[in-house]
Amino acid sequence: MSENIYDVVVVGAGPSGLTAAIYTTRRSLKTLVLSKDIGGQAAMTSDIENYPGFEHVDGLELMQKFQAQATKFGTEFAFEEVEKLNKEGETFILTTSKNREIKAKAVILAFGLTPRNLNVPGEKELIGKGVAYCATCDGPLYKGKDVVVVGGGNSALDAAEFMSKIANKVYLLHRRDVFRGEQVLIDKVQNTENIEIIYNAESKIVKGDQKVEALVYQQEDQEKEIKVDGVFVEIGHIAKTDWTADLVDLTERREIKISRDCETKTPGLFAAGDITDISYKQAVISAGEGSKAALQAYKFLQGANAAAGPDWS
Amino acid sequence: MSENIYDVVVVGAGPSGLTAAIYTTRRSLKTLVLSKDIGGQAAMTSDIENYPGFEHVDGLELMQKFQAQATKFGTEFAFEEVEKLNKEGETFILTTSKNREIKAKAVILAFGLTPRNLNVPGEKELIGKGVAYCATCDGPLYKGKDVVVVGGGNSALDAAEFMSKIANKVYLLHRRDVFRGEQVLIDKVQNTENIEIIYNAESKIVKGDQKVEALVYQQEDQEKEIKVDGVFVEIGHIAKTDWTADLVDLTERREIKISRDCETKTPGLFAAGDITDISYKQAVISAGEGSKAALQAYKFLQGANAAAGPDWS
Repeated sequence: MSENIYDVVVVGAGPSGLTAAIYTTRRSLKTLVLSKDIGGQAAMTSDIENYPGFEHVDGLELMQKFQAQATKFGTEFAFEEVEKLNKEGETFILTTSKNREIKAKAVILAFGLTPRNLNVPGEKELIGKGVAYCATCDGPLYKGKDVVVVGGGNSALDAAEFMSKIANKVYLLHRRDVFRGEQVLIDKVQNTENIEIIYNAESKIVKGDQKVEALVYQQEDQEKEIKVDGVFVEIGHIAKTDWTADLVDLTERREIKISRDCETKTPGLFAAGDITDISYKQAVISAGEGSKAALQAYKFLQGANAAAGPDWS
Repeated sequence: MSENIYDVVVVGAGPSGLTAAIYTTRRSLKTLVLSKDIGGQAAMTSDIENYPGFEHVDGLELMQKFQAQATKFGTEFAFEEVEKLNKEGETFILTTSKNREIKAKAVILAFGLTPRNLNVPGEKELIGKGVAYCATCDGPLYKGKDVVVVGGGNSALDAAEFMSKIANKVYLLHRRDVFRGEQVLIDKVQNTENIEIIYNAESKIVKGDQKVEALVYQQEDQEKEIKVDGVFVEIGHIAKTDWTADLVDLTERREIKISRDCETKTPGLFAAGDITDISYKQAVISAGEGSKAALQAYKFLQGANAAAGPDWS
């Protein structure tokens, strides 16, 4: 008896997970998406201008469109985190945060990355009291205030630019002397009057009693301090892949190693998007990878029949 | 003196080429797109339902959105085919059908595939007189008539379904006994009253004097004939890569071999989308690949500076 067994369970609901679900359900595979929320990192970006087809779109809005499309073709959703993954015989068993066991014939891991912490005194204590990891989400709370964005990549540049329209003053604190991001964004940030860039600076302490009051940083041999009401940490992400155990191979960064067709080392287990060892983390790339993972999962479930030849033969 | 030399020339203006241009121009690279038309194969599809973000969109309309976005960031376009590609020192030289020479520091090949012919008597003579390779383009001319679609993959299924709404009767002629395509499409086609599926049939002759009158096919040992006004050939595509000469390695199908980051064997020469040896040919996958090629071209042009570390460090 095959009780409630899914053809495909997709873990994660960002660009790669939702695209995978669009593709598996269009191929009539019974599909469940498991995720703590909708949209992943993409949903935390206010202004997406480089997803083809949309000159300008809010990240959350775009992700809701993906979700609606997946739902239209029959995707089921459950808002639970996955805590354990096992394979018994040919069946995958996923244990969720609500202690449910869910069975699947194939699994697509597409749960993306988690924002990295500064790891300095005061940071943890003041989360939600001035320390934030998503300018788009929490930025509007800092209207007319002074804030600092920490980081030097696209997400930090994006956050600084976004905050400059809301806050009174935005410091952008970067530990190097050059940015690594899109030139368009770098230019914008460098030419915005209320953004002050502080190069070669290492964050040391987030100060404040009930709420953030200042950030202490080190520049060359000196310790300096800026008075701010908010600290936006935008210094990259980590791969929380511990629970995938020995079913996948990981890189040094703990990202999941995949083949060109999104296969892991375990048959029936696929991975797509930011959580994998692909070189670039972009919404449109993750969407493409989600589609590949879905088509490869379909081929796996079809067995040998579908193994040969291109799409059209 | 560096006269009119582009940072990047993109050959082709389908999902991969246009996405590549969006990404290179957002990184302030001077970019020219060379193509005979806009949209490639995607523009020939009437109903796209699996490009994430759009529940339903006309292929040409979607490609025009991509183009507008690339144009907004400064992409230049020239509607010329490329006939020759050379590298002299560090510079690529592209010779176009208008006999112009265009110089570039990096080139992204994204010109997709060309529809395959049946290669039977009468086909070539009756092109435009009933023989067609794009149901979306030419379909509306066959209102109330009888047509045959030849093929068994997604594009044939899509064409049959599309034509069933226009034509009086649609034959779908397939040389095997199972379809290779999305189950949703297969179900639709099998449940549409005015579509008659003919399995295990090989096309032999397109008959007609001034215009198509019938298609002759072989089924098992018998030669049979169906009276039709139109023959839509949807049997796949070929890779026209001869002009890329020895700057790239080709597969047996003559597709361009690429690394995971869209590199060819020649430094500075990248390839993306359907023309490469990726496994699946889908608009969203090609878009993702175009983005990879652009970011990798950017890295190449930046030189060693940008070679290490992820996007955010």
